[in-house]
Amino acid sequence: MFRMLAKASVTLGSRATGWVRTMGSHQLLVPPPEALSKPLSVPKRLLLGPGPSNLAPRVLAAGGLRMMGHMQKEMFQIMDEIKQGIQYAFQTRNPLTFAVSGSGHCAMETALFNLLEPGDSFLVGANGLWGMRAAEIAHRIGARVHQMIKNPGERYTLREVEEGLARHKPVLLFLTHGESSTGVMQPLDGFGELCHRYQCLFLVDSVASLGGVPIYMDQQGIDILYSGSQKVLNAPPGISLISFSDKAKVHHTTPVISLYCLRESLALISEQGLENSWQRHREVTAYLHKRLQELGLQLFVKDPKIRLPTVTTVTVPAGYNWRDIVSYVLDHFNIEIAGGLGPSEEKVLRIGFLGYNATMENVDRVAEALKEALQRCPKNKL
Amino acid sequence: MFRMLAKASVTLGSRATGWVRTMGSHQLLVPPPEALSKPLSVPKRLLLGPGPSNLAPRVLAAGGLRMMGHMQKEMFQIMDEIKQGIQYAFQTRNPLTFAVSGSGHCAMETALFNLLEPGDSFLVGANGLWGMRAAEIAHRIGARVHQMIKNPGERYTLREVEEGLARHKPVLLFLTHGESSTGVMQPLDGFGELCHRYQCLFLVDSVASLGGVPIYMDQQGIDILYSGSQKVLNAPPGISLISFSDKAKVHHTTPVISLYCLRESLALISEQGLENSWQRHREVTAYLHKRLQELGLQLFVKDPKIRLPTVTTVTVPAGYNWRDIVSYVLDHFNIEIAGGLGPSEEKVLRIGFLGYNATMENVDRVAEALKEALQRCPKNKL
Repeated sequence: MFRMLAKASVTLGSRATGWVRTMGSHQLLVPPPEALSKPLSVPKRLLLGPGPSNLAPRVLAAGGLRMMGHMQKEMFQIMDEIKQGIQYAFQTRNPLTFAVSGSGHCAMETALFNLLEPGDSFLVGANGLWGMRAAEIAHRIGARVHQMIKNPGERYTLREVEEGLARHKPVLLFLTHGESSTGVMQPLDGFGELCHRYQCLFLVDSVASLGGVPIYMDQQGIDILYSGSQKVLNAPPGISLISFSDKAKVHHTTPVISLYCLRESLALISEQGLENSWQRHREVTAYLHKRLQELGLQLFVKDPKIRLPTVTTVTVPAGYNWRDIVSYVLDHFNIEIAGGLGPSEEKVLRIGFLGYNATMENVDRVAEALKEALQRCPKNKL
Repeated sequence: MFRMLAKASVTLGSRATGWVRTMGSHQLLVPPPEALSKPLSVPKRLLLGPGPSNLAPRVLAAGGLRMMGHMQKEMFQIMDEIKQGIQYAFQTRNPLTFAVSGSGHCAMETALFNLLEPGDSFLVGANGLWGMRAAEIAHRIGARVHQMIKNPGERYTLREVEEGLARHKPVLLFLTHGESSTGVMQPLDGFGELCHRYQCLFLVDSVASLGGVPIYMDQQGIDILYSGSQKVLNAPPGISLISFSDKAKVHHTTPVISLYCLRESLALISEQGLENSWQRHREVTAYLHKRLQELGLQLFVKDPKIRLPTVTTVTVPAGYNWRDIVSYVLDHFNIEIAGGLGPSEEKVLRIGFLGYNATMENVDRVAEALKEALQRCPKNKL
């Protein structure tokens, strides 16, 4: 065995770049990276993209709390408080309500893998990136996927969905409440009852809307609802919220520190009250829309009733490259906003006012930044 | 539509517990949870279980840094530094080396789902919980799983593995480097070369060993290696490290704050040097073993050469209930240790000395706590 190792070392040693430390029968051939010897510093920025958002100070403080074991009773207490906080934010009494260790995308997978079997019929509202993504995952599961295709910026009516339910007899319907790639808020009233009449479960993605837009899981007949931590809740990304009535199996080291943060963000929204949070997002976004229109900008979603109060999509003004505007605002004002995504790519700018960031003052800051960007960025008459 | 909603509200309203706020056409029926109105407080403890461990102060500080967008160039820089740090810790030059958003269990799934197809032959060392877990996941993927069953506390020889390779012609071999459920350190020299002679890939779980025990991914011919953040690296759980040469696909909001922490923990191990970290774990554990034996306790792993230097398994002393000892040490000394897991359940106590926690002083603290526990806990003569 010793002989084999010596041979391996020689072979690899010839590929090394000089730094070699002999350690027993092996050698350290990969040196400690230079870059890690410098201190970590992170820029101070206002995050007004479609998420992640800035952390609320109380959430930030929770990220600096000391570790405890994930199987201790104090941790179970925190997880129980999180469960209650999610039940409040979702307005549900479902006992199977919990935090998933993973991004919103992970929650989407959790939902679909628990609800769909190969061969199942799946009806999906594909009016933006998230519906398209759900269709893709369901396709891999082997479901028969029926996409209701729409132009980006549009939403679904009860009549359209009923047509799909009658024709495809799905076991599951997927709709996105806050379509962050297009800025559309999908109304949810009546869809749950409709689904149940057709023996179909109703699955809703509320990653970009929860806390900023009214949602009532139980009253709206939503069977499975999930959301993310890094939007209105202002917690760090990497954790998500889900509620449903099926059986699920989870086992791993839970992300203790992330759970502290999530607990604090749910405490904040409980303290504030959902109604106040919803109202603040509505008012701040109304003011944002006014300021944007005063600058001559056009909102991408035509129907004001379905404009998402958390993420606003602005049509890229004629003659401009959206990348110039995003970079200008970042470089000169330390404000992050974003371009489009999926079906809205190249077409829109996306501005998020999420939780703690949703203030009139921040509207003024981004409006001023955009005003200057429009004056200074190159404009090619096409 | 309005009529349907009113009906839904009435039905649900009758289940409510009194607290009801009317909000437009719906009602808030789930009140803000009482528990979230209290401040979050977490106990101060020394975490000497098999992980998670206490965070190093520099890692803790990183958890309190402000957010930035996950798609910004500064974030890509941090991710690149993390990649380099993992390459150093793994001693590999694999370009496909990265952090996975999820626990070590998630990294195991990432590896298996990328390497196994239904019908593939899979050879797995099942001498503890992690091999059994890998076998279970592979089974669900539809692989033909061949478990090399061993008693807990034992390890595999080159000859045993060669026998399995010759008989089952697997595409993949799985071994656990640090078997945290039994306290066994599996020697890795020679297995990579052996696998490659049989056209088999070599997958290693180093969750409980990385940074505390020598490992040389490239020189030892390991094709896929993964580890966790919450053990020797002293970063928060919820993120894991993986390196392999196959193609992988990842897309979601990366856990920005967790990545800060991981960057800092890799910076610490780079600063310290792997050799020093390995040596410190060896010395501290040797001292721990001495102190435990002085108390009359027996180490569960018979062969001293394969005792894992990060997680020590101690046979539950005759006449005691392990739960009493664990509770005593927690309640009277604020030290977390753990009972057994999977094949070692009810049989052992597990004591972890991981990274920042691996000091002689902490050995003295846990030895003193155990001494008192053995005096005070009920001992039933069987």
